[in-house]
Amino acid sequence: MKNDKDLTIASLAPLIRRKKLSPVELTSFLLDRIHRLQPAINAYITITADLALARARRAEKEIARGDYRGVLHGIPINFKDLFYTRGVRTTAGSKILADYVPRANAALVQRLLDAGCILLGKTNMHEFAFGVTNANPHYGPVRNPWDTGRISGGSSGGSAASVVSAQAIASFGTDTGGSIRIPSAACGCVGFKPTFELVSLKGVIPLSFTLDHAGPITRCVIDAAYLLDAVANRPIGKDIRKGIQSFRIGLPKQYFFDRIQPGVRKAVLAAAQVFERLGAEIREVNLAGLDQTAAIASEITGAEALAFHQPWLDDRPEDYGENVRSRLEQSRPTTATEYIRSLGSRLDYIQEFDRALQQVHLLLAPTLPIVAPAIGEPEVAAGRSRESTLLALLRLTRPGNLTGLPAISVPCGFSGGLPVGLQLIGRRFDDSSVLRAAYAYEQATTWHEKFPDLEKDLRSEI
Amino acid sequence: MKNDKDLTIASLAPLIRRKKLSPVELTSFLLDRIHRLQPAINAYITITADLALARARRAEKEIARGDYRGVLHGIPINFKDLFYTRGVRTTAGSKILADYVPRANAALVQRLLDAGCILLGKTNMHEFAFGVTNANPHYGPVRNPWDTGRISGGSSGGSAASVVSAQAIASFGTDTGGSIRIPSAACGCVGFKPTFELVSLKGVIPLSFTLDHAGPITRCVIDAAYLLDAVANRPIGKDIRKGIQSFRIGLPKQYFFDRIQPGVRKAVLAAAQVFERLGAEIREVNLAGLDQTAAIASEITGAEALAFHQPWLDDRPEDYGENVRSRLEQSRPTTATEYIRSLGSRLDYIQEFDRALQQVHLLLAPTLPIVAPAIGEPEVAAGRSRESTLLALLRLTRPGNLTGLPAISVPCGFSGGLPVGLQLIGRRFDDSSVLRAAYAYEQATTWHEKFPDLEKDLRSEI
Repeated sequence: MKNDKDLTIASLAPLIRRKKLSPVELTSFLLDRIHRLQPAINAYITITADLALARARRAEKEIARGDYRGVLHGIPINFKDLFYTRGVRTTAGSKILADYVPRANAALVQRLLDAGCILLGKTNMHEFAFGVTNANPHYGPVRNPWDTGRISGGSSGGSAASVVSAQAIASFGTDTGGSIRIPSAACGCVGFKPTFELVSLKGVIPLSFTLDHAGPITRCVIDAAYLLDAVANRPIGKDIRKGIQSFRIGLPKQYFFDRIQPGVRKAVLAAAQVFERLGAEIREVNLAGLDQTAAIASEITGAEALAFHQPWLDDRPEDYGENVRSRLEQSRPTTATEYIRSLGSRLDYIQEFDRALQQVHLLLAPTLPIVAPAIGEPEVAAGRSRESTLLALLRLTRPGNLTGLPAISVPCGFSGGLPVGLQLIGRRFDDSSVLRAAYAYEQATTWHEKFPDLEKDLRSEI
Repeated sequence: MKNDKDLTIASLAPLIRRKKLSPVELTSFLLDRIHRLQPAINAYITITADLALARARRAEKEIARGDYRGVLHGIPINFKDLFYTRGVRTTAGSKILADYVPRANAALVQRLLDAGCILLGKTNMHEFAFGVTNANPHYGPVRNPWDTGRISGGSSGGSAASVVSAQAIASFGTDTGGSIRIPSAACGCVGFKPTFELVSLKGVIPLSFTLDHAGPITRCVIDAAYLLDAVANRPIGKDIRKGIQSFRIGLPKQYFFDRIQPGVRKAVLAAAQVFERLGAEIREVNLAGLDQTAAIASEITGAEALAFHQPWLDDRPEDYGENVRSRLEQSRPTTATEYIRSLGSRLDYIQEFDRALQQVHLLLAPTLPIVAPAIGEPEVAAGRSRESTLLALLRLTRPGNLTGLPAISVPCGFSGGLPVGLQLIGRRFDDSSVLRAAYAYEQATTWHEKFPDLEKDLRSEI
C-alpha cells in the first residue's frame, strides 16, 4: 500500500477524513505486517486482530456517515502491556499476571479509544517494567528491527520496535528511568516522556509512583503532539509549527557528554549545529552533582517497586524471572530513612535543573551513551570505560525522571548502522517547547524518514 | 486596660486604625503580661521585648502618618519556636538548636511581618514538635492556664497557652498529628489546621513532610480568618458571616465518639444541637476502618522524622531529651516498604473521608477524647478504657493530618472546670466553610469569651 514513511497520523488522518483510506484497509495492512514480523521481532504479547477489525469497521461506518471525530479516528495503535485494557489481558510482561483481564481501561486508553483509535494489541516489555533490556523470560526478548541480534531497549521495547517496523502507527509506553526514550533511541523513533502528572496514570500498573510517567512512541514528532493532546490535562501541540527563533538551548557537556560512544557524540553535536542554523542560540550549561543519579533513582525505584510487589514476591517468588526477582530482593534492606533521604536528594536535582533551565529554554543531550547492544550482553563500552548494560542504558534518561521534566528522544543519525537519538529536556509543564524544538529539528532533517526494510529481510529469509 | 475578652484582632484593629489605641500601648500591655505570667505558664522560650517595642513604635508612626496596612497592622503575635525568624533564635524546643539564629524568616512569618504584625517572641513546644504533652526537658513544661498542674497539650502548647492567657493576641503553630488543635482544645481557644499545602511551610523546621501543616491559634474564629487570609494561597475568610443555613453536618459516631470522657461527649453533642438550631442539618455518617490510624500515622511521622534527625541522632544522641530520642529510635527498623505501604493506606483514609464528605459539608467531632490531664500522667481514662496519654491526645486529630483536610478546634464548653473543644473537619480546600460554621457557632455561644483569670491567681499567690 503506502510508502512506509507515510505511515504517520499526520499523513493518514487526512486520507481517512476524506474517505480515501478506510480504517479497515489500514488495520488489515498493519495486522498482516504484525503476523509476518511477530516471529522475527516479537513486539507483541497479545494481538487483538478480531477486536481491531471490528473497531475498524465501526470507525469506517462512523466516518462514512459523517461522524469524523478528529485526527485519531481510525488510527490503529497499540499499548505497552502495562496499561489496563478492558476485556484484553494485561500481563505487565509477567507470568504472575499472564491471565489477568482488567474490567476497565486505563484512563489514557479510554481517552484514546474515545478519540477513535483502534487497538491492535498489547506490546512486549521488560517484566513489570523493571528493566530496560526487554530480555523477557516469559515472552521472549524483543528484537531490534535494525538488527535482530540486538536489544530493542526497554522497558517499552515492544512499543518502539512495533512502531519502527510499521506494526502500528503509534504506541503508548511508560517511562520510570527512561523506558519510553531508551527503546525509542535504540530503535530509531520518537519517544516523549511528558512532565510528571501531565498525563494520568490511572489504570497503569505501577513500578515507582514517584518516577512513573506515560507517553507516546511515534514515527514523527507531530504524531506525539496529536496523541498527547488527546490525553494531557492541558493543550500541548498548538504552537508546534512556530519554529525555534530566540530559543536558548543548553548543552550540558559534563555528565551528558562524558563516557559516550564517539559515533553518538558526533551525531548529537551535529544536531546541535542544526538547531543553531534554525535560529536557536546554543550555549554550554553546567549541571553539577549528577554522579549520584543512578544510586538515588535505583533506591527510589527499588523501594517503591518492592512495596508494590512484596505480597507476590513473598507468596510466589518462583513466578518472577531471575532478573526482576533479584532486583526486587535487593531493596529488602532499604530502610525508610534511606528511601526518604533519596527523595530529599531528588529535590536537589530538581533545583539544579530548574536553575539551569532559567538560563535556557531546553537542554540538548544524547538519549543513550551507546547504540543498541547485542542481546544478552552484560557489559558495554561507552567511550573508554566499560559499564553494565543496564546502567549505561539508564544513565542519561534517569535525570528526566528524577526531575519530572518533559523529555523527548528524536532520531538524529546512525552509528555503525544503528540509530542514535537526541534528547531534549524542557521546563516543567513546558512540554510545548520540547515538541516545538523537536519538530523544527525533524523538519530540517530526514532521519525520521529512515526505517529498516524488514520486508526485504523477510524475503531473503524465505 | 481592656477587658480580656476584647483582646482580639477583630476588636483591636478598628481601635488601632482609628488611632484610639497605639500599638506601643498594646505591646507594652502584653509584654507586661508575659513577664508576669511567664514563671507560672512558661509559654515562651524567647521573648523579643525590645524588638517588639521597636516594631510597635514603627507601626505607630506608620499609622499616624496614614500608612495603615490592614487589620494586622500593629497586632502583637508570637510564633511557635519551629518557624524561622531572622535574627531571633529558633530552637525548635531543642538543645541541639538552642543557639540557632536563622538568617531568613519563614515565608509565613515574613508575610505576617509585612502585614504589620509585631513579633512578641517564640513559644515553648514539645521538643522538635515530636510529641503532644509539651513536657519539654530543656525549657520546662508549658502549664495549662486553667490549671497549672495540667499540661497545655502540644506540640504548639506555648502558642495556645499564651493566647488563652492574653500573652499575645494570636499565634501560629504547626500540626502534624494535632499539634495546633490539641493545645487549642486543652487550653480553650481556636486552633485551625488548614488544608494541606494551603499555607507554605518554607522555613518551618520539618517533623513529617507528608503530614506537616501550619496554622493560626487565636481567641476567636474571625481572627483565624484574618491571619489565614494573610498567608494562604487563596482567599478564605470572605464568606465567614454568611451563616450555615443548608449546611449538612455529619456526626461520625463510630471512632470519634467512642472511648471519650462523658463530659466531653456531652459538650460536643450539645454543640451539635446549636448547629441544628442555626439551620444546619445534622446527620450521622459512617467512617470505616479508622482503627489503624494511629499505627499508620506513627509509622509515617516516625520514618520522616528519623530521616531528618538521623545525622544529629547519630552524632549527639545525648542532646535529645529521653522522650523524643526514644521515639526517634523506634523508627530505625522501619523499612522503605513498610513506610510506602503506610503512605498507601493513607490514600484509603483520604478516599473514605472524601466519600463521607460528599454526603455532608462538614464533620463534627470532639477534638480530644479527654480534658487536659495532669503533667507527667503517663495514662488517662477515656470513657471506660485506660490509654497512654500520648495516644489519647492524638487519637481524634490524626485523621485530619492523614487526609490533609481542613480542621478547626473551637471551645464548646467545660468539663470539671477544664475546656472542651469541638472539631469541624471540611472538604479539601473548602477551608472557607469550616471557618463559616465555626464562626456561626461562636456567635451563638459564649464559650470563646471565657478566659482564666490568671491575674487573680497571681495575686493570690503573692
